[in-house]
Amino acid sequence: MKKTQRACIITHILTEHPNQDFSLGAFAEELGCAKSSISDDMKLVREAIGAAGLGYLETTSGAKGGVRYVPYMSKRAMAKALEDLKKAFEEPSRMLGSGFVYTSDIMFDPRVIRGAAQVFAKRFAAAEVDMVVTVETKGIGVALFTAQLLNLPLAVIRRESKVSEGSSININYFSGSADRLQQMSISKKGIPHGSRVLIIDDFMRGGGSILGILSMLKEFDAMAVGIGVVVVAGGRENKKLSDYVPLLILDDQDKEKPVIEINPDMLKL
Amino acid sequence: MKKTQRACIITHILTEHPNQDFSLGAFAEELGCAKSSISDDMKLVREAIGAAGLGYLETTSGAKGGVRYVPYMSKRAMAKALEDLKKAFEEPSRMLGSGFVYTSDIMFDPRVIRGAAQVFAKRFAAAEVDMVVTVETKGIGVALFTAQLLNLPLAVIRRESKVSEGSSININYFSGSADRLQQMSISKKGIPHGSRVLIIDDFMRGGGSILGILSMLKEFDAMAVGIGVVVVAGGRENKKLSDYVPLLILDDQDKEKPVIEINPDMLKL
Repeated sequence: MKKTQRACIITHILTEHPNQDFSLGAFAEELGCAKSSISDDMKLVREAIGAAGLGYLETTSGAKGGVRYVPYMSKRAMAKALEDLKKAFEEPSRMLGSGFVYTSDIMFDPRVIRGAAQVFAKRFAAAEVDMVVTVETKGIGVALFTAQLLNLPLAVIRRESKVSEGSSININYFSGSADRLQQMSISKKGIPHGSRVLIIDDFMRGGGSILGILSMLKEFDAMAVGIGVVVVAGGRENKKLSDYVPLLILDDQDKEKPVIEINPDMLKL
Repeated sequence: MKKTQRACIITHILTEHPNQDFSLGAFAEELGCAKSSISDDMKLVREAIGAAGLGYLETTSGAKGGVRYVPYMSKRAMAKALEDLKKAFEEPSRMLGSGFVYTSDIMFDPRVIRGAAQVFAKRFAAAEVDMVVTVETKGIGVALFTAQLLNLPLAVIRRESKVSEGSSININYFSGSADRLQQMSISKKGIPHGSRVLIIDDFMRGGGSILGILSMLKEFDAMAVGIGVVVVAGGRENKKLSDYVPLLILDDQDKEKPVIEINPDMLKL
């Protein structure tokens, strides 16, 4: 097998497995060549990926010594992903009146929502996250892709307890948008004790549902090290919490003509 | 930029965007070189990806002329993904008794469930699918990754109608495992009229919930061109439908010691 071929195959495997550790020995075995050749190939891959602003190859230490692909998004790629997201939300046909926006198709379209996840993965890359957590249903898409890019598991909190979850922890929280008490439930096995958690959700208005997740995390002695939300409605003044990262900001004071803007902080990342 | 570098970058971009069309011109512009060079690079990438059994590069016709990466899984890779899945399900700690198995963590762990999606993407690659459909909640992970690999949108049917879905279609169906009538709901915008649909779900016992999805599809004049289910419990005799593709088969006649096997048909793909 030629050098270029090996470099392509290594690139493919690393791209498919972001933030995962690979030993040079494993590649050598897979590709039937010496570890020293793989080491040279890796240099080529590192240069190429780096030059194109697509990520970094980090050298990992330990007995085996290896490599990890950390995805990266250039400012330009990020601006494009956010612009695509904004455009998708702006289609007039999705304005349902009374401030409601139809977003289910976007939230589950990998071609759009994976871009949002890439932005979160970049934003929270250094947060030393153990696990991504969301609450069903529409945030699951962006949370799952974020988890994949960070090579982490995802835990999904349910709206009611299910027999297939075994023993569960249940909490009640006040939802401002539904104007009533709501429930959240997750299996006792759902979140390992003491986890550092990244909360990812699709939409936030008052912040009640995120607050619910935060009190759920307390039950597991877990800690939120970041909160990412795709769309946040309204200004910051009425929020029950302050430390969250929105991608898009929805101004729906005019219920019939809501305005969607990209969070300017995101473009500075 | 050197040839090998360009080949790595092209490999990365194609791997990140399975089943998506790219024009050679776009690559030429991105990488600042002649279209003829890209054409040569593409040959290298095609050989490498093909030699490693990781996929095909298909040449696409049309005005621009381009290329599409179609992911592939070797028999060996498929056997490994299914074996990993089986092992995950077999952990004794997840047997809750009375035939219930705790699977939420697996179903939302990208490191495990993406393998299941890769198997479905291979199995249904030729089915000319327009859209993947699932019903909330635990099947969303595998359905979303399948949709991503096939470069398709995903529609998620809800358990109850939501105001943010706008006008919706609601159906009732009989769930054997819950032993009662249940509801499904999706926005009228959720599934385009006449779509060819791939149904993906996490678990099936009697088949009531898949039957529910099928009757929902009728409301949209849509057609199921495939049904993939991660785990199917029990034999075929009690199923309400016949044409489905399970990855794992759960024999839980002994409720305390269920046995999980890989569907042997999958290993022949």
